[in-house]
Amino acid sequence: MPIVLLSDFGNADGYAGTMKGVISQMAPKLSVVDLSHEIPPFGIVQAALVLYQSYRYFPEGSIFVAVVDPGVGSQRKAILVKSPAYYFIAPDNGLLTLVLEKETPQKIIHLTNEAYFLNPASPTFQGRDIFAPVAAQLAEGIAPELFGQKILDYQRLPDFFPEVSKKKVQGKIISVDRFGNGVTNLSKEFLQKHFPGLKFFIQVRNKKIQTLKNHYAEVKGKSPFLLFGSSGFLEISMNQGSAAKQLRLKVGAKLQVKRA
Amino acid sequence: MPIVLLSDFGNADGYAGTMKGVISQMAPKLSVVDLSHEIPPFGIVQAALVLYQSYRYFPEGSIFVAVVDPGVGSQRKAILVKSPAYYFIAPDNGLLTLVLEKETPQKIIHLTNEAYFLNPASPTFQGRDIFAPVAAQLAEGIAPELFGQKILDYQRLPDFFPEVSKKKVQGKIISVDRFGNGVTNLSKEFLQKHFPGLKFFIQVRNKKIQTLKNHYAEVKGKSPFLLFGSSGFLEISMNQGSAAKQLRLKVGAKLQVKRA
Amino acid sequence: MPIVLLSDFGNADGYAGTMKGVISQMAPKLSVVDLSHEIPPFGIVQAALVLYQSYRYFPEGSIFVAVVDPGVGSQRKAILVKSPAYYFIAPDNGLLTLVLEKETPQKIIHLTNEAYFLNPASPTFQGRDIFAPVAAQLAEGIAPELFGQKILDYQRLPDFFPEVSKKKVQGKIISVDRFGNGVTNLSKEFLQKHFPGLKFFIQVRNKKIQTLKNHYAEVKGKSPFLLFGSSGFLEISMNQGSAAKQLRLKVGAKLQVKRA
Repeated sequence: MPIVLLSDFGNADGYAGTMKGVISQMAPKLSVVDLSHEIPPFGIVQAALVLYQSYRYFPEGSIFVAVVDPGVGSQRKAILVKSPAYYFIAPDNGLLTLVLEKETPQKIIHLTNEAYFLNPASPTFQGRDIFAPVAAQLAEGIAPELFGQKILDYQRLPDFFPEVSKKKVQGKIISVDRFGNGVTNLSKEFLQKHFPGLKFFIQVRNKKIQTLKNHYAEVKGKSPFLLFGSSGFLEISMNQGSAAKQLRLKVGAKLQVKRA
Repeated sequence: MPIVLLSDFGNADGYAGTMKGVISQMAPKLSVVDLSHEIPPFGIVQAALVLYQSYRYFPEGSIFVAVVDPGVGSQRKAILVKSPAYYFIAPDNGLLTLVLEKETPQKIIHLTNEAYFLNPASPTFQGRDIFAPVAAQLAEGIAPELFGQKILDYQRLPDFFPEVSKKKVQGKIISVDRFGNGVTNLSKEFLQKHFPGLKFFIQVRNKKIQTLKNHYAEVKGKSPFLLFGSSGFLEISMNQGSAAKQLRLKVGAKLQVKRA
Repeated sequence: MPIVLLSDFGNADGYAGTMKGVISQMAPKLSVVDLSHEIPPFGIVQAALVLYQSYRYFPEGSIFVAVVDPGVGSQRKAILVKSPAYYFIAPDNGLLTLVLEKETPQKIIHLTNEAYFLNPASPTFQGRDIFAPVAAQLAEGIAPELFGQKILDYQRLPDFFPEVSKKKVQGKIISVDRFGNGVTNLSKEFLQKHFPGLKFFIQVRNKKIQTLKNHYAEVKGKSPFLLFGSSGFLEISMNQGSAAKQLRLKVGAKLQVKRA
């Protein structure tokens, strides 16, 4: 089963390559897949989304190593989570919020056993010295419990949960992809529940967007429209243009959802 | 034989990684090579060139999966082309124009058999749901004919063919690479045929360029010069500088070719 | 043992992918790891640092192919260096300066035997035509001596050696990473030797920086501070901000080191 790497290290500085070196030393036969190393620096929310969008397409038993870690070296925990089908290794900073909504954790291990780390472990590059070696040794058959103590819970980020009150429903942009699609935290299930028959429109920066399409090529011209993206979240899109640019959508931007 | 991936998905959003997940699930032993995922968004012309420049360096039997697909979800076809030595899987939008000038198609299959797609296939991410699974199953031994109907022809892009009239020969910039080289659609063969002894010069933005060199380091200073690049096309280059920047060359820019 | 690739080819143009094609043709079973292809164009200094930071994390016997090569096609040599644990293949332009300070060369071979190159070898893309095929054939068991003549020395870059005179100690920025850390050429050993007890401060652009920390999260607010990075060199950093941006640090910028 592959080890799948996700980080904000970028592809320039060799940090991601170094993690692959550590893995190739400890588990030479293993295949390693780069999911993304171009998460924006410290972009925990975007990393959580990328992981959520893709994990289920990997074979059962895959080990995901996700390192977006603004608190590296601080008191934040490093954790290993086992779900029925997968393993997830990450700093405990909310990065696993979305994926663990779907994949029920069976075990959460706080990674504390230094016998499985590189020695000495640098306080600034735990991807190399803690996360990669734990993943490689897990792949080689070490039992999860040996890496540290069982704990009962993990950090969640609020960004993925739309705010619902009597007066309003408010969503958020959680990612802007390369094509300028603004991905919201509004899932199809959520919208169907709160707006039966999907009778809603989005208001963002005083602009009202209601057109809901199935694919990009359906719309001619450079008007923004809505679409449920390949991950199941509502996206604000434009055919061969950047909706994010036209509407100045950034990660964290708020959206009002209203009854149509 | 490897599956070789080419796309405009970028390396940030996890789309390319997800395709690799699908392949690792269906064909776990297979090696997957990333040719490029940083083709400019919707850059069919640039993708066609990258594929053409590189395919022949891969082992016989390699399966190329090229997804630059502005028309995803529309009526454009998805196709599989078998040549004597290789397989090419792509949307039928001209992306295979250059490569199929050299590699004669033996079979062209319109991919229609949904039994080999992920189910349900998303209308916005066919790289994941159609192209990757077809490639993986082809690699696992499924016969090309099983994926759909045989068809007789494919789309060609005009961009790769210089315009020749009695009055003039007009070329085009088809790519600007990372080093600022402007790659033209003028092959050595074409120029030798129309300008015997290679007695020609290029005119672009009122600038005349005639110096033809063999390698970058031959030229001192920041003057643009000509050079047949590693792919056989004429390039406008500069030694350790960006010819594209100095001459404001963009993909699609027109060039006059004249007798020297 | 893997072949590890490092270049300034970028991930867009397919040049790095083509090198992988050549290797997969000549050594199909071999695993290839991308260390980085996003070294800034012609950034020999940055490439030397990335290689130095990461090589020791790869398994013994690994073959590093590093192609940052502004002099491609000129008279600069292409070399293969064997150290006790590794092989390094690169243009002889100083790229191996740092790594060979630690890894004593046992053999240096000037790559001249065209029988092991692709034929004809392009004067503009030796990564494809010389470096990749030599690496693949070395991995397949060809003895280093067969690729060319033994030579006795290699080029070194001065950038990695701080200037020490009676009057001053002067360092340099040798890389700016994705997170805006400015990496200096001042190693911990060097500073301990010249400033016993590490009693020093850095002066850069009339700004004095003295605070020395162990990890990023120790510092609140956007003030620059010092830190020995994961490679052992002193870095100028900022917690979740870009020190390089605030201080306008660029590769090559000079720093004064003074007794505190």
